[in-house]
Amino acid sequence: MALPAEFGLIARHFAPLAGRGALGLGDDAALLDPPPGRTLVLAADAMVAGVHFLPDDPPETLGRKLLRVNLSDLAAMGAVPLAYLMTTAFPRGVTQDWIAAFAAGLAADQAEFGIELLGGDTVVTDGPATFSLTILGHVAPGAALRRVGARPGDEVWVSGSIGDGALGLLALTGRLPADVHLASRYRLPRPRVALGLRLAGLARAAMDVSDGLVQDLGHLARAAGCGAVIEAAAVPLSAPARAALAADPALLPRILAGGDDYELVFAADPADSARVRAAGAEAGVPVTRIGVFEAGEGVRVQNPAGDDVPLDVSGWSHF
Amino acid sequence: MALPAEFGLIARHFAPLAGRGALGLGDDAALLDPPPGRTLVLAADAMVAGVHFLPDDPPETLGRKLLRVNLSDLAAMGAVPLAYLMTTAFPRGVTQDWIAAFAAGLAADQAEFGIELLGGDTVVTDGPATFSLTILGHVAPGAALRRVGARPGDEVWVSGSIGDGALGLLALTGRLPADVHLASRYRLPRPRVALGLRLAGLARAAMDVSDGLVQDLGHLARAAGCGAVIEAAAVPLSAPARAALAADPALLPRILAGGDDYELVFAADPADSARVRAAGAEAGVPVTRIGVFEAGEGVRVQNPAGDDVPLDVSGWSHF
Repeated sequence: MALPAEFGLIARHFAPLAGRGALGLGDDAALLDPPPGRTLVLAADAMVAGVHFLPDDPPETLGRKLLRVNLSDLAAMGAVPLAYLMTTAFPRGVTQDWIAAFAAGLAADQAEFGIELLGGDTVVTDGPATFSLTILGHVAPGAALRRVGARPGDEVWVSGSIGDGALGLLALTGRLPADVHLASRYRLPRPRVALGLRLAGLARAAMDVSDGLVQDLGHLARAAGCGAVIEAAAVPLSAPARAALAADPALLPRILAGGDDYELVFAADPADSARVRAAGAEAGVPVTRIGVFEAGEGVRVQNPAGDDVPLDVSGWSHF
Repeated sequence: MALPAEFGLIARHFAPLAGRGALGLGDDAALLDPPPGRTLVLAADAMVAGVHFLPDDPPETLGRKLLRVNLSDLAAMGAVPLAYLMTTAFPRGVTQDWIAAFAAGLAADQAEFGIELLGGDTVVTDGPATFSLTILGHVAPGAALRRVGARPGDEVWVSGSIGDGALGLLALTGRLPADVHLASRYRLPRPRVALGLRLAGLARAAMDVSDGLVQDLGHLARAAGCGAVIEAAAVPLSAPARAALAADPALLPRILAGGDDYELVFAADPADSARVRAAGAEAGVPVTRIGVFEAGEGVRVQNPAGDDVPLDVSGWSHF
């Protein structure tokens, strides 16, 4: 009796990604001996073609983007990446070459982030390609970074640069001139895992910026029962983002609220600013103080004159 | 700033399902202190409307089916269920009532199987509803049931009854007369968790029957480097399946190879048959000896006269 084609597909493309506990992807489940004395950190994200990525994005980047948005969740908790499980719903008629490229991207990121595939499921769909990934990491007990914990007077920090992902989407869809840096930032987020590890015990609250800086900072403020103010001029922009904003100042709301940044936004005691800068330097990631938590509620954005900037978009929502 | 609608949706429907480690579904990831000294068991399965379930299946059963097919993977490894993460891609325009019913089904099964939601993601899709679930369980180190381990001469056993799910799909799509039992077995598998726990250290190899008895038994035989023979007359059938087969003997291949059984098929030393029966009795699940592993390769099905029954289908495949 011949095996159905999916077994060959899994053996060819996904078994090489599998760690020891995956049992060659040939059992009903994987086995994992968790690191003794550590707390597991778990997150799951899904991506749908046409919603979370462009249908013509190269397959090499799709699995990597999915892995990286999940790694970004681990980074936000200050966790060490461990392993992942993934389910893939490929459109009927997907080619072996497409899947090979998808898997090659995952292999590259597994090496970069020191993580391995534990298991999953491969199915077909009559709809858009849909991927789901569950990631496992670990932290010392009680050491996880949380969204709750900021206090009025704490400084607001972000890693890297803001707005590149949202502008990259515009560039890839012809609404801004083509730009390799911005496109790459949309397709391949850079999860700040090394920084997150160094912020545990230092940042008072943290999360990753996936739905837009304003909305996500709002979560930190709400969890703290306070508000926050962002100094627009302090928000770190890449050179291409700065050029785009200079050419069209109306892009500011898109930069501050567009999403797909996968940077970390976090709160720190002003007395710890030198330690925060050192953590960024050790992790090889710029960190920038962009504002402060304050009494009240909501997130305000101030221009250099101290006036509030109106924002007409508030962040990504599915519903 | 108002929160996007998905936050209300998650708070209303999914937060009540969340366990303590889920942090109210309000952080980037969940925390879990794994049971000390135990090996984790992890599996992930996806379901797509029109492929794994009927688009008009009641929402109450869909989350439960997804949870149960994953619990069936834990059962096959002899694992204790612990927690799960789930991603849901709902079709645009899904109603609050639909999601409420979906979540109510999950709540019922969480209570039944002693498991809780740890996290996940809720998105929309322009395609069919697509769900993915990662389940975590645990076993004593080295005690997991595996697919490899059967030996020629071992007996082939199955739990429950075979073919109900495949016949249920026929009944729900008008190709067989409507039948409440068969429809229920298609929509709500009965994962044999209690039996799996009692088979650890007793069965030599095990897996769950999801892609059809013949194909899945073939996996156990292949892993053992041998073959297996099924006595067709010994395969346990429910009363509705027995009646359907009596009315149309051509249904036999569908019963033996149709899939969606979510029973356990396992190998045991003939000297252990009394212990196997006792395990079934303790778990409250019938167990039936249906054949034997033998030298050679492949799975044969024999009729009562000892002749091989030709099967023209070999099990479910996506590709």
